[in-house]
Amino acid sequence: MAADSVRVVSDLRELRALTGDANGAQRVAWTPVWLEARAWFRNKSQGLPVEHHYDAAGNSWTTLRGESDRSLLLGSHLDSVPNGGWLDGCLGFLAGFEVLRGLIEDFDGKPPITIRLVDWADEEGARFGRSLFGSSAFAGTHTIEADRQRVDRDGVRLEDALRKCGVDVERIGEAALERRGAAAYLELHIEQGPVLEAMHLPLGVVLGTKGVERHAITFHGQEAHSGSTPMGVRRDALAAAAKLALEIRPIARRHPDAVATMGSVKTFPGIVTAVVGRCETTLDMRDLDAGILASMLADARAASERFAEEEGCTVDWSKIWSIEPVPFDAGLIALCEEAVRETAGTSHRLPSGPLHDAAEVSRAGIPTVMMFVQSLQGLSHNKAEDTKVEDLALAVQAFDLLARKTLNSLKG
Amino acid sequence: MAADSVRVVSDLRELRALTGDANGAQRVAWTPVWLEARAWFRNKSQGLPVEHHYDAAGNSWTTLRGESDRSLLLGSHLDSVPNGGWLDGCLGFLAGFEVLRGLIEDFDGKPPITIRLVDWADEEGARFGRSLFGSSAFAGTHTIEADRQRVDRDGVRLEDALRKCGVDVERIGEAALERRGAAAYLELHIEQGPVLEAMHLPLGVVLGTKGVERHAITFHGQEAHSGSTPMGVRRDALAAAAKLALEIRPIARRHPDAVATMGSVKTFPGIVTAVVGRCETTLDMRDLDAGILASMLADARAASERFAEEEGCTVDWSKIWSIEPVPFDAGLIALCEEAVRETAGTSHRLPSGPLHDAAEVSRAGIPTVMMFVQSLQGLSHNKAEDTKVEDLALAVQAFDLLARKTLNSLKG
Repeated sequence: MAADSVRVVSDLRELRALTGDANGAQRVAWTPVWLEARAWFRNKSQGLPVEHHYDAAGNSWTTLRGESDRSLLLGSHLDSVPNGGWLDGCLGFLAGFEVLRGLIEDFDGKPPITIRLVDWADEEGARFGRSLFGSSAFAGTHTIEADRQRVDRDGVRLEDALRKCGVDVERIGEAALERRGAAAYLELHIEQGPVLEAMHLPLGVVLGTKGVERHAITFHGQEAHSGSTPMGVRRDALAAAAKLALEIRPIARRHPDAVATMGSVKTFPGIVTAVVGRCETTLDMRDLDAGILASMLADARAASERFAEEEGCTVDWSKIWSIEPVPFDAGLIALCEEAVRETAGTSHRLPSGPLHDAAEVSRAGIPTVMMFVQSLQGLSHNKAEDTKVEDLALAVQAFDLLARKTLNSLKG
Repeated sequence: MAADSVRVVSDLRELRALTGDANGAQRVAWTPVWLEARAWFRNKSQGLPVEHHYDAAGNSWTTLRGESDRSLLLGSHLDSVPNGGWLDGCLGFLAGFEVLRGLIEDFDGKPPITIRLVDWADEEGARFGRSLFGSSAFAGTHTIEADRQRVDRDGVRLEDALRKCGVDVERIGEAALERRGAAAYLELHIEQGPVLEAMHLPLGVVLGTKGVERHAITFHGQEAHSGSTPMGVRRDALAAAAKLALEIRPIARRHPDAVATMGSVKTFPGIVTAVVGRCETTLDMRDLDAGILASMLADARAASERFAEEEGCTVDWSKIWSIEPVPFDAGLIALCEEAVRETAGTSHRLPSGPLHDAAEVSRAGIPTVMMFVQSLQGLSHNKAEDTKVEDLALAVQAFDLLARKTLNSLKG
């Protein structure tokens, strides 16, 4: 049975009605609304010949046992950012669910290999600031040590919030057991960027996720009275930061797919009558090539030091987080391209700037690929996030085709 | 009797011990510590042949009646910013008190003209954001209308806080009655800037206070995902703001005494993973020449519009506050220069970048001048604010001399 995109869109709308409000989706991981979304899915899957369990990191696994333990994984995430969109994460998960339903019918409940649908726990990291929580536990790239002390903005400890959802932080490493038998992982996701829309293409094949270097950069100058301090003697931390905000752009533009963003600037004391004594900024740089990313980071660091010196300031860097580029599997990229071409006529290969659970799965050595569907105006993490219904239909169809092609390649 | 600078420094230290803590002075207007500082002064002046009252705006008046109702006003302010310095405001007030004590002795309690010492209420505006509160009520330049809705950061209304200090906001205009008979106003203050220190001069004559144009400037771009949004399609509000932060500097440097400051930058959503969609900044520009100030403002506005266009953003301006330049009285400037020269050998004329109560008094048509004493490292509004003790001694001596010269010129 071919996948029924109408049913996917209907499921998405039902989920939106249940777990969204006037400001958008509210399925923040480890909150009651998220648990409600998961319960809704469990209810949807009642009566199907599948097994279900939550693993030690809170990932939700729905398993259709096949002739072999070798398994094809399909998945994404039900959690959202606060005031999120109606497609981010849940499109991929519910498209996977639709594919699963179709395969159950086609193989009369017993496909040649095992098919597993996963809803990764806390992809967004919206409440505790730790994204890819469940998938990184699965991949074994993440222990709880660095995150044990995290609290949400109400002061609730991560450990306590997770316990309420049945997850013991000391045991999340056991999620790695789920890797047994995993032979491939496929994920459909909205692009969350403007590339496919600009090319008038509904679908794209994702080459991998870009590496990310994320740093806090603070310039230290001298707070001074805005009225009494002549221009020539100022040590203005904002001026040094402003130069860097502008310089990261040519640094990124030297490379075709690279991006660099200063997303946050904080000024201290931050009042209209004082020269800025301290300026805290953040930098996020991404590229699919590790060498390019490293050279961009070195360029930015050198520029920051030059600007600090020019302005009589000092600068310090503190790494917030980084991840290496994760290229996806060449064989699956080829299958994905076939599926997209056969469905939509034209395909396009692009790297993913945003991170995805697929990156963690790929880092665990499991062959992985993602398919992107066009986002309107590149908007995401926002209730205005949207995709044309006809593109959603093509996406479900192409993803179903990719799953079947992959299944065929695995059983062979 | 010549002014006794040792007594002034001793009074300053006593006040610091009473109303400061490890973080600096805490005499924020309309708070218990400020009331305590005022009670301390009232106690100090017990036994002197003076009258005392608070006017309708909360200004504290200590009057030594003379042969004539014509009066010489001396003053400054006891209030401080939070974590303020030990000299800002209280030096001028306590030096004035010392001069008053000397004149009482010299004239046996009955000088030829009336001498009045004023402690202006809420010069700093630290709690409710409205500086020069008392002096502007005195000058008649300020009604309560624009400030009636102000609240402090705990949500306490200005009106309620003032009532607790005995001030009815509906009646502050009656402070204008204090202008009767006022023939001159003199104020000593720390420079709060680095100019005199750089010239190795203890004292300076203030030409007037610079005009101020203070604006909130907001750039509107498009919030976008830092990973998925190619550099070429971004509408980065921070980039436009950064260009302006740098461009205001050459705009100011075209004029010898002008200053321009971007003191606050706020980024929205202000997270490491998003291109800045909205950037709120503040601009503070000052010059003693109204024409120069107007041209600087026009230059900054044109630049902001050009940068917004270059970055695919829009920009809007909202005036926070402005005041025209206030030149001081030529005759009093000459007397002040004599007093400084006779005390310290060399004088220097300079405009004041910071505003002072003296600007409001001058706007009321009362001949006014200020004397500055050197600040170490230009620091102020900070517990590190300081001035060499020998310079404080010269300042008290020169200010006493200026008061006597002014008194002589008025009685004549």
